[in-house]
Amino acid sequence: NTSLASEAGLETGPAGIVVNDRLQTSDPDIYAGGDCAQILNLVSGRPAFYPLGSMANRQGRVIGTNLAGGDARFAGAVGSFVVKVFDHSLAGAGLTVQNARKAGFDAISVRVAQLDRAHFYPTKQMMHLELVVEKSTRRVLGIQGFGSSSDAMVGRINAVAAILERHPTVDDISNLELAYSPPFSSAMDILNALGNAADNMLAGSYRGIAPEEFEALWTGANNGQCFFLDCRAREDGQPIAAKHPGRWVNIPQDELRGRVDEVPDDREIILVCNTGVRSYEAQLNLRELGRENNRSLQGGMVGLKMSGIEV
Amino acid sequence: NTSLASEAGLETGPAGIVVNDRLQTSDPDIYAGGDCAQILNLVSGRPAFYPLGSMANRQGRVIGTNLAGGDARFAGAVGSFVVKVFDHSLAGAGLTVQNARKAGFDAISVRVAQLDRAHFYPTKQMMHLELVVEKSTRRVLGIQGFGSSSDAMVGRINAVAAILERHPTVDDISNLELAYSPPFSSAMDILNALGNAADNMLAGSYRGIAPEEFEALWTGANNGQCFFLDCRAREDGQPIAAKHPGRWVNIPQDELRGRVDEVPDDREIILVCNTGVRSYEAQLNLRELGRENNRSLQGGMVGLKMSGIEV
Repeated sequence: NTSLASEAGLETGPAGIVVNDRLQTSDPDIYAGGDCAQILNLVSGRPAFYPLGSMANRQGRVIGTNLAGGDARFAGAVGSFVVKVFDHSLAGAGLTVQNARKAGFDAISVRVAQLDRAHFYPTKQMMHLELVVEKSTRRVLGIQGFGSSSDAMVGRINAVAAILERHPTVDDISNLELAYSPPFSSAMDILNALGNAADNMLAGSYRGIAPEEFEALWTGANNGQCFFLDCRAREDGQPIAAKHPGRWVNIPQDELRGRVDEVPDDREIILVCNTGVRSYEAQLNLRELGRENNRSLQGGMVGLKMSGIEV
Repeated sequence: NTSLASEAGLETGPAGIVVNDRLQTSDPDIYAGGDCAQILNLVSGRPAFYPLGSMANRQGRVIGTNLAGGDARFAGAVGSFVVKVFDHSLAGAGLTVQNARKAGFDAISVRVAQLDRAHFYPTKQMMHLELVVEKSTRRVLGIQGFGSSSDAMVGRINAVAAILERHPTVDDISNLELAYSPPFSSAMDILNALGNAADNMLAGSYRGIAPEEFEALWTGANNGQCFFLDCRAREDGQPIAAKHPGRWVNIPQDELRGRVDEVPDDREIILVCNTGVRSYEAQLNLRELGRENNRSLQGGMVGLKMSGIEV
């Protein structure tokens, strides 16, 4: 409620009372903090509304220091958030790909599904992260994640949020130094894998397709225009049964070089595996063989399941 | 084992094979990565030995990219680590206060004990963090932590590790934007509180004493030189019983202004509470009354218990 401020003649904006980085309003003897105060989004440079107790607490200290003759600053925020949804959690920082495009960025996004700790550790859980990147500059604009309700995912979001206002690039994510030990992380942490996937996408070696685009191809009127190549490994020596013969075929990635004749060359190939790693390797194999007309499903079958898409 | 490299005439240093940031050895056609390669500590600028699979994985990608004609870099590391010790975990990044002093920094450290999430959330656990700071520049040199084996602590360490090579100051820790929601954090997160405690210490308003120094005063030959003032709140209206009358007395912090006559002024006062917050407030109360000869126990009784010190 900013009406008290408006009626007193203070400047207000689309997201609340306008303040400078000392949290002074347009009347320098009046300060504002908390939900009523407009916050600068440090990624987009636009006014933002973040009604969080964490903002109010940090702003309170800044205002108190300044009132007492000190000089403290609150520059703005990158919009870190986390919510617990029953046994899962949803978190993010910075801009979504939709908001980045609205803000005028030439943005792409990349998704990775990976375990939150070593694959042999008993309490491992699948985690889904999406990184939003400005194509022309490699600048990271945001990250969002969905996973179990452990602290594992929010820890990853917080590590990216910590550097987000410093204009990190994809390479900073590839090299982010997460503490490693099997009960807490993988040797190649999901954040590093996410940076690498973005690097591969920007380099043109990884052409991905998001689950929503996949669904449109799978169920759309022109669903015959694509061939779905399942690259998952054999199970107990047997290939995965083709649920949709002629349209969806299993050729394990490590057999693909010798069996490329089974892959049609008159249609786009959609490469699918469990989490997106083998289908990317299959994409590299096909490139060596001169086959470029394909895309790899981001997050694989795990990503489809998370998106509620059935095949 | 770096003997193969030494015998081949490659340069080696105190922590392994010398490499540049492209991971080339002294022979530019030979690359090295993994435990055998010396890593630059990005905080101290000195050679370091970090035999971690996470380093080897990231270095492997850099070497592969460079071998294939690309230009990838591995600048060094801040030494993030985490180990699980039964139901607890121990983690850190950057320099300990001892190592910072050895490396020539004018370093101080500050400790905070705080819950890892909202105080009303059922799975809350106590977490202990220590921040290492260069006194003259306010630069953060390292962080160490001890807590439960949840992912909560390593997430905090990772957030600081992410910015550590960028020479953050205490103010960057005070303003670090951790995603807030009661199942995952406090509105004033322990990391923000840690930055604020360091800020207060640098400003001279907070004079702390570490548990080890406390123990020396409590058990040492000159143990009569101090008076121990327990600032904890009354329990069910009753003050906490003085286990050591004449030497250790309970005056709740909110009663201190009216009862200052009970506090001796001929000896140093050691202020004690549960986690270190009330004893800091008591220190501010005493300052208003002109009493400066006191120190506040960092981490309070919780910190003593963690250090195995009995009173």
